[in-house]
Formats: sequence, structure tokens, C-alpha cells
Amino acid sequence: MSTTMKTLRKMQAGRGLSLESAPVPAIGPGDVLVRVKAASICGTDLHIYGWDRWSQGRIKPPVTLGHEFCGIVERVGEEVAAVKAGDFVSAEMHVNCGHCHQCRLGQAHVCQNVRVIGIDWDGAFAEFVRIPASNIWKLDPAIPEHYAAILDPLGNAVHTVLAGAIAGQTVLVTGCGPIGLMSIAVAKACGCATVLATEVNEHRRGLAVKMGADVVLNPAAEDVVARVRAETGGTGVDALLEMSGHPAAIAQGFQALRAGGRASLLGIPTEPVTLDLVNDVIFKGATVQGIYGRRMYDTWMQMTALLKSGRVNLDPLFGERLPLEQFESAFSKLQSGHAGKILLYPNGVPR
Amino acid sequence: MSTTMKTLRKMQAGRGLSLESAPVPAIGPGDVLVRVKAASICGTDLHIYGWDRWSQGRIKPPVTLGHEFCGIVERVGEEVAAVKAGDFVSAEMHVNCGHCHQCRLGQAHVCQNVRVIGIDWDGAFAEFVRIPASNIWKLDPAIPEHYAAILDPLGNAVHTVLAGAIAGQTVLVTGCGPIGLMSIAVAKACGCATVLATEVNEHRRGLAVKMGADVVLNPAAEDVVARVRAETGGTGVDALLEMSGHPAAIAQGFQALRAGGRASLLGIPTEPVTLDLVNDVIFKGATVQGIYGRRMYDTWMQMTALLKSGRVNLDPLFGERLPLEQFESAFSKLQSGHAGKILLYPNGVPR
Amino acid sequence: MSTTMKTLRKMQAGRGLSLESAPVPAIGPGDVLVRVKAASICGTDLHIYGWDRWSQGRIKPPVTLGHEFCGIVERVGEEVAAVKAGDFVSAEMHVNCGHCHQCRLGQAHVCQNVRVIGIDWDGAFAEFVRIPASNIWKLDPAIPEHYAAILDPLGNAVHTVLAGAIAGQTVLVTGCGPIGLMSIAVAKACGCATVLATEVNEHRRGLAVKMGADVVLNPAAEDVVARVRAETGGTGVDALLEMSGHPAAIAQGFQALRAGGRASLLGIPTEPVTLDLVNDVIFKGATVQGIYGRRMYDTWMQMTALLKSGRVNLDPLFGERLPLEQFESAFSKLQSGHAGKILLYPNGVPR
Amino acid sequence: MSTTMKTLRKMQAGRGLSLESAPVPAIGPGDVLVRVKAASICGTDLHIYGWDRWSQGRIKPPVTLGHEFCGIVERVGEEVAAVKAGDFVSAEMHVNCGHCHQCRLGQAHVCQNVRVIGIDWDGAFAEFVRIPASNIWKLDPAIPEHYAAILDPLGNAVHTVLAGAIAGQTVLVTGCGPIGLMSIAVAKACGCATVLATEVNEHRRGLAVKMGADVVLNPAAEDVVARVRAETGGTGVDALLEMSGHPAAIAQGFQALRAGGRASLLGIPTEPVTLDLVNDVIFKGATVQGIYGRRMYDTWMQMTALLKSGRVNLDPLFGERLPLEQFESAFSKLQSGHAGKILLYPNGVPR
Repeated sequence: MSTTMKTLRKMQAGRGLSLESAPVPAIGPGDVLVRVKAASICGTDLHIYGWDRWSQGRIKPPVTLGHEFCGIVERVGEEVAAVKAGDFVSAEMHVNCGHCHQCRLGQAHVCQNVRVIGIDWDGAFAEFVRIPASNIWKLDPAIPEHYAAILDPLGNAVHTVLAGAIAGQTVLVTGCGPIGLMSIAVAKACGCATVLATEVNEHRRGLAVKMGADVVLNPAAEDVVARVRAETGGTGVDALLEMSGHPAAIAQGFQALRAGGRASLLGIPTEPVTLDLVNDVIFKGATVQGIYGRRMYDTWMQMTALLKSGRVNLDPLFGERLPLEQFESAFSKLQSGHAGKILLYPNGVPR
Repeated sequence: MSTTMKTLRKMQAGRGLSLESAPVPAIGPGDVLVRVKAASICGTDLHIYGWDRWSQGRIKPPVTLGHEFCGIVERVGEEVAAVKAGDFVSAEMHVNCGHCHQCRLGQAHVCQNVRVIGIDWDGAFAEFVRIPASNIWKLDPAIPEHYAAILDPLGNAVHTVLAGAIAGQTVLVTGCGPIGLMSIAVAKACGCATVLATEVNEHRRGLAVKMGADVVLNPAAEDVVARVRAETGGTGVDALLEMSGHPAAIAQGFQALRAGGRASLLGIPTEPVTLDLVNDVIFKGATVQGIYGRRMYDTWMQMTALLKSGRVNLDPLFGERLPLEQFESAFSKLQSGHAGKILLYPNGVPR
Repeated sequence: MSTTMKTLRKMQAGRGLSLESAPVPAIGPGDVLVRVKAASICGTDLHIYGWDRWSQGRIKPPVTLGHEFCGIVERVGEEVAAVKAGDFVSAEMHVNCGHCHQCRLGQAHVCQNVRVIGIDWDGAFAEFVRIPASNIWKLDPAIPEHYAAILDPLGNAVHTVLAGAIAGQTVLVTGCGPIGLMSIAVAKACGCATVLATEVNEHRRGLAVKMGADVVLNPAAEDVVARVRAETGGTGVDALLEMSGHPAAIAQGFQALRAGGRASLLGIPTEPVTLDLVNDVIFKGATVQGIYGRRMYDTWMQMTALLKSGRVNLDPLFGERLPLEQFESAFSKLQSGHAGKILLYPNGVPR
Repeated sequence: MSTTMKTLRKMQAGRGLSLESAPVPAIGPGDVLVRVKAASICGTDLHIYGWDRWSQGRIKPPVTLGHEFCGIVERVGEEVAAVKAGDFVSAEMHVNCGHCHQCRLGQAHVCQNVRVIGIDWDGAFAEFVRIPASNIWKLDPAIPEHYAAILDPLGNAVHTVLAGAIAGQTVLVTGCGPIGLMSIAVAKACGCATVLATEVNEHRRGLAVKMGADVVLNPAAEDVVARVRAETGGTGVDALLEMSGHPAAIAQGFQALRAGGRASLLGIPTEPVTLDLVNDVIFKGATVQGIYGRRMYDTWMQMTALLKSGRVNLDPLFGERLPLEQFESAFSKLQSGHAGKILLYPNGVPR
């Protein structure tokens, strides 16, 4: 086996990424080395590519990006018993400390000392990636490779949908990016009676229908709150799944929420948001949930079980499959907002 | 409108029922009079027909049976505002007192002073039935009449399935009578990954497959616990939905339950049951739930929303549709254990 | 018995209240007439006295105010069985419709069609008040009359404290008005390990200590967030109980909340509030709860049981006891912010 | 430091224990070596001493007993960062695997591959004990040493009490051994309104009163179910905390439980138990919880916070403090059932 490998890295503080040769990672006694089959590009990767303000405060170049992936275990450290070479795996890329207050309480997804592989450490846009064994998630070989590569964002969707009651509920999804779209499919698979969705982008509205949304609204052209009220006999929706981070969508979502409902917020606003706390939260007796990452590892269990059930069809989401070398094409298509999930193949695209 | 009507009644302490003429019920200011379209026969009705020990202690003849039904509102009392003549309705037949500890806590389904229509009061095996307005459940006219007639047992199934987490879970249903069968369909519609079911009756095992069970086992011929372990990688199921009341099925179910799982018990054993509390409950850290009736009215909301979603197909369950006069034929078929849900039509079977 | 009675009423759109003679209320078959022993003045009453913008939109004069009270049942309507003349009672003053989505789901405290006695109907600043029987809360005669008169705001406190886990938790109460102060005592009685409180008013800070707060901070003079962090080993508090409605307190509270914690919001901001949703809610995986009224009737059960346990001492909260006629003195003292709960006695102050 | 140490060990399959010299444990890179200050004798230790059937199936001599203890960290392995020499600590003695279904779901207390220190590995009846760093629980030096030595059983009590709602509840504790007694104090500290307790042993009934029970009953002399009903207005208790494992107490407890209540079972019956499932669980809509160990590490957080609050007084529970050498005296007193918690001091009893 070669001692160097191909990687896609941020080399310096500034816009862009570059294809670089780097050493194959050394692994410690509790680590696993995974040969990457497919890696998917996240919105966060776009931000780092573009070197926005958040990236400037968080990313310390040089670092290899990539935190959505699947692969085959190449080798394991001497203390690793639960994983072995040849296993088909993905991984939770948030590495928690294990001893802070949150870790001790079973809230590892909000660990105070979290480190994220592909952000803080070298990630999966590479032929190989090093992962602590406790973060490895073994997969049934029956799970298709392209689904396996996007378990990270699918986990965001499942975490959001299952953060409260869902069977027999009426739900509004605001924002139909990839996670919003997956949430629609997951909500329907979990017995949601009616899913309404809002999205300004026409292409994405079409995808929302394909994912199973019952009513898809264009907030630029329609009165979302009035439409939701009409569809719910004036009551409002039982649950808001906020996926846009957009202040207007957040405001509409809260207004459309019924008294006693829940609002699960995953979309990331770029600025502080002004809320009508009295009418939209307090007098409504609403529950608002911040959703971050995926529960470790309840969400992973639920997600792989849902995939196994065969009731979650994500096929409409996928875009091109490209070798790692064609990353510039992938990033520029994604920045246009029209592509689905694009997969990069560091070890070559399978025929 | 005639002042008398056709009813199917228990007239005296002893086996059997008889077709009788009785006055159309007078309604009070808070009541609703419903013209019955279809009424379904419950296992409880079979017990009362047969006059078993439970019936002898509970039933005070004369009384009209029938607590699963749908119909059209004929007229309402002067204080009733939320229901009007012509509405398509079913009803919760447990009439709660409203002021006991449980009613005050939102646990009206286990009200200390409950009275059951069709058991303690005259029920729906009649052309008309009197129902307190607060117990009426208005239905979307799009719900088919035969589904509307069995919301009572479907509510038992939904109450059981949704008494704990269900999406992405692996579930064992022990006993495939009507409620067990409905539970299979509901569990799958709510995102259950794998449903295993046990049943000794071959015909019902066939129905279990039609309702969506992934694995159907015959406990008379197979080692249920070993099979469940094999299907779950040795872990056991996340949830047991006990629908049989049979001691052997209860024991198998508890053994097949994983540590940390939940057992939801709806089936009614005829005798006290001996449990291995230490190994099956305490050391497992299991949660055991007694399931009675339906939550008032969370379950009704969930149930009608699930039907609206179109993902719950109950068609395989239904048997014959008969005029009320042919009740003897209906009861004898049901006693044989091979019929599905038989519907009686007090006002005539629609073409 | 006289047919007229003394009342304290808002007679016209404008500042002030007046003492008026009015007919003793007629009661319907489901109602209860209560002879008022003591009634307490709520902050809402101050707003209505002052005729602020909210009052102008909500109050339709003439109406008798007063929604915190206790008394003795004078007589009951013919359909009332669970309450009888001579019972010592208080009441939930939110009258719910019983048939909206929320009422059917056991969320009657956020009923879509709620009417509030003392706001929308004639209230308890009168010799007698009419209450629907279902809203009556019977009291153990051992509960002291002054406690019985303030169950409405105590219920707000109990609802807030018990809206999430509390035993063994570290809690921050922002704002030490009467409900904030009661929350401190309730939280300690329910096993809270550490209660921190913030309040700008020195007198109220003194009361906070008397109610059992472990650490009391003056946000005008201290860095609240830094102090909370220091007291919690850098982690932040498990729960925020927001009682002030003040934007700065809300911001401090959210910053002081640990990742994975809960924020229960009861205080009413007068304007929309700008929140750092990303850092204070989403990335924290926090749960935010709007708290309105009291759960019907879980909170009433909990509250009366807590009082019965003898572990909740509210004595420091009480101010003067005055005959109804001295309402001007009471309102002016309360407007100064220094008085505790002042009780009015429409039927005379007991010796 | 010496390379050998004093231990109390089971040396062979048969009754009794013996004082033995053994090597001071070697620690791995993730381990901690603790110098034991005080260790407490558990009922399980009595069973192993007596070599009952359970012990014969589980214990593989030679092994050092002792799983309730506190001590000072002597040294730590090279990978241990969160603990350091000199720390005052106790430990969770259940060592979980980290990768089974339950561990992944945050239910490590029912890990499928659990190993218990003091049962499966050498324990704390020794001058030193080896503990994996992740199982160490650091203590505030303000916690008294005798309390610190019994956090394991106190954790059982806290786990049981807080397994459901407790503030404002009415609770029945059946069986007043050490864990039952601690449960009484914990329940009262967490806002329980009324605690009833049953116990046949007169001495323990006296302790139950000291721990704060409101009503203490002798089931050999009184009709427990009738008394509970009388104390609860006929309703029954909200929660049963079953601490005896005795079939008659279990039956009484279930009968005394109100409809909709919860039964939390910790006591270990020696045989299968016959339950009236229909009337005591199913028709009641009851929730039954098997309680095993302590939640890792929610319970530890709650427990240390409750101790810090100063509202849990366990002093009446403690018996003698003896050097390890006097273990025979300790075991024989405990077998008589009259002693409280006896502490053994492997490194000498402090003055």
C-alpha cells in the first residue's frame, strides 16, 4: 500500500481548495483507517470553499475537508474489537470528549469539547480517512453506496423529524434544500398525515413533490400562513421543521404553528433573528427545539432502520458522481443551487 | 320518524341475544342521536353472547349491545354546538365522569367512574344510538364507511403502537386477531423497520403477511424466541405488542424483548399470569405498559390522520356485511375464529 | 340573600376602576356561585387599570375584574354533582371550549376559544362570582386562605418549574416578581440543587433569598453570564425560568443556559425580541418552552400536593389585606413595585 | 509503595470469604488506581458470602468483592486526562462495552456485555482497586466520606424515584431495606407530597419514619391496600416503588396503585411472580418499569446534585465503621437484618 494519497484540501486562508498529495493517516490503537468509496459535498464545504466569515474563524489550514462519506475498513488499531478490515462503514464525524457534562448525560451531540472530522481534523475527501473506532457506524451491505454516503445529512433530517411526535401529525417543512427534502420523505415514512413545504426555488419545489410533500408552496408568490391555516381547518400545523435559516421563513413557520405545537429549528440564520415571542411561543405554549447534528447514536439506529424498511426513497436527491479530481465542477454546480447531492469518488467512480 | 326501532339486545341473564323492538332513545340537552350506518362485532360482544363469567358480573340485562359503529347525526340536544344533524360520525363509547383524579389528569381513558355505551348503556346494534356530544367523533366524509365502523378497535391498535417510540423500531406482535392485525399495518405506516408476528391460526398468519408483517411465526411449530433473536442479531425486539392474552405468548414476548425495550400489553389473559419478573423486566430495565381503550382524544386524532394519509390498508380484515337480522350467522362465524370483522347494518345493507 | 352586590369594575374605556353595585350573578345548570373570601391583584389587573394597549384591544367594559381568588360555594346548578354548597374552593379562570384541536389533545390551557373569567366575563373582585363547575378546584380546608387566593399565579410557577426535569438540576430564574419568587420556592421543594436568580430591584432580591435562592444577582451591577458560568464549572445552567419578559434578561438567560438545556419562558415581552438563535438555541440543542397559564388540571394537582407537603413556604410574598373598598391604595402600592401580593376582601377582612 | 495489599476475597466455590494478600492491581493506559477509603457491604455481598444459587452461577473464584466505595486516586494511566492523582472519587462499577445496541442508545446500564467490578473483576474490599477512567465519578470534597461510600445503592434509589414524575405525587415504598429507606428521603427531597411505606421489620419501620415517610405500615398487621385507599381518597397511589422483591408486597403494591400510575420495580424476587395482569396492569393503564443499576451517568449527576442541595439526610442509615479485618462481625450483623449500612476501611478507620 502506498504511503501517500490523493486529498482535497484547504491549504491557506482564502477562497478555494486544491488537490494535494498527503501521507496516508497513521492510526492509533483505538482508530480505524477507512478507504473512502464515496464522499458527499455539504453546504458547509461550500462555505469553507468560499472562505466566509464563519470559515475564517473556525478553519485552520491546511486541512482535508469531507464529512459525509462511506467506505471499507482498511485496517484497525490494536484495541479495536467491534470493527474489522473489510467492514462497510460510515461514521459520525463529531468526536466527543466523553467526560463533559453533556457527554455524561447522553447528549454527546452537544459535547462541550467536540472536534469535527473534515473541519477540525483531516476528513474524507481523500483516499483514506482516520476515524476513532467509537465513531464508526457499520452498515448492512444491502444499503446502496450513494445512500451510505449521505447518512450525515440524512441523520440531520431524521433527528429533526423524530425530535417529537410525528405519526399522525401535520407538518410544515420550511426550506427544501437537501435536508429539508430528506425530512419530507422521512416524515411521510414515519406516518405523518400531511406534509406541507415551502421553497422559493422552482426546481426544489418539484423535488419536494417527488419526496412526498402533500402541499408545496412558493412563499414568494403565496400567503404561506393563510394557506397553512386553510389546509388545517384554521388550527395550524402540529410541527414546524425549519430548514432554511431564513428570517422570513422562520417567521412564517412560527405563525403557521398551532398552539401547543413544536418548532424544530435546524436551518442556520446568518444573523440574530427577531421573534414575536409572546404570540408565537409563549401564548401558544409552543416547544422550540434547537437541532444540532444527530443524536449519538439513537439517530443512527433509527436512520439505518428506516432505510432497511425500504420506505424512504431518496433517489430524486442525487446529482452527479465524479472523481475527486473534478471537484471544481462539483462545487460550481452546487453553488448555483440547482444540483442535488453530488458524490465525489477519491478512489475512482465505479462503473 | 317512528318512535320505536329495531335493536339487538341481551334480554336476560343467559346465553344468546335477541332482536327486539325498543323506543328510539330520548336525548338530553347535551346528547346526540345517531342513525347507525354500520356496526361491527367485537370479541367482547362474543363474550356477552356466550354469557361467560366476566359478562355475568358486568352486564345488567336488558341492554342493547354494540360499541363499534358509524352513522349520521339525526338530531342534537339544545346545548350541542359542535355537532349538527347530517354529520358523519363515530364515537368514543367510554363515557368518563370528568371529575375523578384520572379525568383531571388527562387520563380519561382510565376514568374511575367510566360507563361504556353498548355495555352499561344501550349501544349501537340498533337503528339509533344516543351519545353524549363530547364523545362524538366527527369524520371526514372521505373515510370509507367500513373503516369508520371499526375505529374503536383501530384505536386500540393505534394506542398500543404509539404508546412508545415506533419509527425505526423492530417490533413483535404476539397474536393476530383483528387488533393485532391492525397493529401490524399501523406499525409499518409509522416507520417501523421490521414487524415480526406470531399466531397459531394459519388463516390469520396469512392475513398478517397481507397487513405487512415482515416475519410471521407459528408458535406451535417454531421456537419463537430463537427466531426473534436470530432476526435481531441476538438483541431482541425493541417493542412487544401483546395482543393475545395467552400466557405462553406473553412469556415468549417478554423473552424476545431486548433489554431496555417496551412491552405494551393489550390482550386480556383469563387468569393471573406468572412472569419471570427478574430476568424479563427488572434486569432488562424494561418498560411494561397496560393498554386500555384509546386515549381521549389523542388516539382519535392520530388514527383519523393516519387513515387520511392513505398508508394504512385495512381491507384484508373485513368479512361479510349483513343486515342486523342475520346476527346469528355473524356470531357463529366469528366464534369459529376464521371470519374477519363482520359488519351489521341496522338500517339495511347499502348496495 | 341580597340580589345585588359590591363589585370592582372597569366601567369605560380609560384609566381606572370603580366600585359598583351589580346584580348577584344568575347561574346556569352547570355553574357554581362562589362567595369570595379573598382575591389577589395580578399584574394583568394593573395593566387593565392603567388601560395599556393590550387592555384596549382585549377588554370590553363594563366588566368586573379579578381572577385570583378563593371562596365558599354558595349554591350550585341542578346538574352539578361534584361540588356542593359550603365547599372551600378556588378556580381555574380559563374556560375552555372542550372541542377544539387543543382541548381534544389534553392541551386545554391553550384552547383556541378560551374565555377568561375576570377578563372576558365578570370576575372575583366582587362578593360573588359565577364559575362553571368543571373549573372549580376544591381545596383541603387545611390550606390557608391567603395561599388559596393565589393559586392562579402559583400555578404559573409550578407549570414553569415542572415543564421539564427539575430534581437535581441547576436553575436560573430571571426576574423576581411574585411568580419568579414562587418559582424559586417550588424549584427548591422539588429537589433543585442550586437556584440562581437575577433581579434589579433590591427589595425583591431580598425576597429571593428568603424564598430559598442560593445565589441572587443584580444584573445592573454584575456580569450575570460570567457569574453563572463560574457557579456551574463553565457549563451553564440546566434550566432557565424566564420570568421578566425583559429583552436583556432573556438574552442573559439564553447565554447562561447550557448546551442541551431547557428555557421555559413565562415573562411577557412588550415588543418582539431579537435572539441569537444559532448560538443560543440551535448549536446548543436547547429546548425552549412557551409557558401559558397552568395545565388543566395536572398543574392544580401538583400545586395542591406541594402545598400539602408543607415544603413550600410562600409567606414572605404577602403584603397587606384590605377590604375591596380600599382598592386604590392597593393598586397604587403595587404600581410602585415594592408591595408583595395584596389581597382584597369583598366580604370583609377577617380579624 | 508496596506491591501487595490486603483484600477480602472469595477464594473458592463455597460459603465465606477470607482476608488475603494480593498484588496491587496493574493499570492499563485508560485505567485509574484508587486507594480505597471506605467500602460498604451490599446485599449482593451477603448472597456471595452465603454462596446461594445465584452466586454459584455467576461468581468465578478467586475474586475480590466490594462495589460500593470511595477513595483517593493514587495514579492514572497515560491516556487518562479527566482524572488525576489526589481526586476524591467513587465509581460506577458496571463496565459497559460501548458498542452493543443498548450502549449505542444511551442505555449503558443494561449493556449486553456488562462486567461488574467486585463481581466479575476484583473489587473495592481492598487497599486499592483498578477502575476504567470512564467509570470514575469525581466528587466534591464537601461530600462526607460515608455518603460517598454508598453512592451505588443511593443511585439505585435515585434511579427508581426519578424514573417517572415525582413532584407533587403520592408514593408507596414497599420494603424498607437500605435502598427503600433512601428512596423515602429522596422522594421527599424531590417534592413528593405523601410517602407511604410498608415493612414487616419494626426497626426498619422506625427508620422509615426518620427518613421522612408520612405513613408507615406493617403488612403483617394491617390491610395495606385498604389503608392506602383510605389515605388517597379511594384513588390509590400515583407511584409504587417496589423495593422488597417479596410476592405479597408486589401484589399489595399493584393493588394499591391508581389507574394510570407507575410501578417501578427494583426488589429482586427469588422466584417467578404471579400477577393479576388484567386488573392490576392492563385495565389500569399502568406503566411498570424494571429498574436496574443506575443510569450512566444521568443518575450520578442527579444524585450528587441532590446531596449538594443538603435536602437528603441519610444519617439514620449508617451503622458501624470497621477495619477490613473485622468483616466477619460486619457480615454477621448484616445477616441479622438489624444493622444499617456498615462501612469497611481497608486502609484503616479514620479517628
